[in-house]
Amino acid sequence: MIDGALGNQTRRYRATIAYDGTGYHGFQRQTNASPTIQGALEAALERITRQRVGVIGAGRTDAGVHATGQVIAFDLTWKHAPGDLKNALNATLPDEIAVWQLQEAGPEFHPRFDATSRMYRYRLWQAPLQDPLGRHRQWHVREPLDTMAIQRAVDHLQGEHDFASFGTPPQGPGRETRRTVYRAAWSAREARQHEACVHEFTVEANAFLYRMVRSLVGTLREVGAGRISPAAFGDILAAADRARSGPTAPPHGLTLVGVKYEQ
Amino acid sequence: MIDGALGNQTRRYRATIAYDGTGYHGFQRQTNASPTIQGALEAALERITRQRVGVIGAGRTDAGVHATGQVIAFDLTWKHAPGDLKNALNATLPDEIAVWQLQEAGPEFHPRFDATSRMYRYRLWQAPLQDPLGRHRQWHVREPLDTMAIQRAVDHLQGEHDFASFGTPPQGPGRETRRTVYRAAWSAREARQHEACVHEFTVEANAFLYRMVRSLVGTLREVGAGRISPAAFGDILAAADRARSGPTAPPHGLTLVGVKYEQ
Repeated sequence: MIDGALGNQTRRYRATIAYDGTGYHGFQRQTNASPTIQGALEAALERITRQRVGVIGAGRTDAGVHATGQVIAFDLTWKHAPGDLKNALNATLPDEIAVWQLQEAGPEFHPRFDATSRMYRYRLWQAPLQDPLGRHRQWHVREPLDTMAIQRAVDHLQGEHDFASFGTPPQGPGRETRRTVYRAAWSAREARQHEACVHEFTVEANAFLYRMVRSLVGTLREVGAGRISPAAFGDILAAADRARSGPTAPPHGLTLVGVKYEQ
Repeated sequence: MIDGALGNQTRRYRATIAYDGTGYHGFQRQTNASPTIQGALEAALERITRQRVGVIGAGRTDAGVHATGQVIAFDLTWKHAPGDLKNALNATLPDEIAVWQLQEAGPEFHPRFDATSRMYRYRLWQAPLQDPLGRHRQWHVREPLDTMAIQRAVDHLQGEHDFASFGTPPQGPGRETRRTVYRAAWSAREARQHEACVHEFTVEANAFLYRMVRSLVGTLREVGAGRISPAAFGDILAAADRARSGPTAPPHGLTLVGVKYEQ
């Protein structure tokens, strides 16, 4: 072995990645030819290493959903430093995907099962017209929204609740719908453009149900529009009934911003 | 005439538009089939009114350059209110283009000749890696930049100067290269992402030479990298010699943010 080569052992690697989900059919590889983030990562790893590598992600983001802090893991035989693999990946991956960080992980590391929390951000553009430059990253809502009413509704989310009103549990046995929200905050600021307001909803929880953030945002928008009161939003949460929530917000406003682990 | 119709007179209209220039070959219509902002506007106006309409813009932005405050004008026979035309345009135009404002203008109004100033903003992303979500709107520069050195160089720009070092004059007789900069400011802030810094250069002048903002930014980046001192930047400006400037920054970091008129 020369040049600090690490030998032919298979190791587990962990990476933090960012992506523009606009042209992709979500994170998870699909049987048909649709481009997916997982598929693009596996293709790049195969091209670099000639190994067939299975990539696991912390969150299965939907089609059109973005990430600035998705965490992935994969097993690989790599004789060079992790930094070289990171550089090779960034040179090989399409422009829509970037690997921010890459390091060796313990052989048992699992990005989904080991995560202690995930943080999502949803952006909403409230204005008579869409902003062409932000159209892939924000939900365009024409009607004015009462930010303070939304914030009062958001106050209900903090803590452990049964979130069955706002999402479906993962498949399989033990369909648990209780989740713990560590942080939920809604902010709004006037945009540089005419009569426009940028709203951002940031939510961190131990885990999320399927479509939970988008269902929360779609229902909170109803609160902002005055069709659901902040107190009624609390009732919807307490009802734990999927039929009670508002419409689901579209995917392109959503970004997975980070995943946390115990050291 | 019914429903407040305005008759069959041809009037001049003025509009403020925004666009994502990513997929377009600049503002100005071209003889080949390349999509241009002007071409898309004229096609939409023809589709709505069955009239062949020539659109004039305040600034001829290059391929890949964006706008949040471009001003255009055109002559049209329109029997309804300007607001109806604005709505029809926004329903007809591709998603990359939005009409923020539309109003009737005086018959002599010319968006380029009547403009008293234009304001551009250039965004630069300084980080080891590009941000996939911002890749169409910011220039990715890997090397660290000395913001204070850049700001000292920018101080030279204020006021009236011969900017021949930083751009070519428009075609035709009277190739004047003197321009007056009313405002030039460079700011930098740490991004949410790892080791990244977002730089923004805002510059307002009575008018600009061809590629002037991109040439300024490309040269200021050399100042930030330490290859040109702030004082030497002042010398380059004073030399009024196109051969003295640094490389031209790429178009996708540039946005035309506004055009001012008297009144």
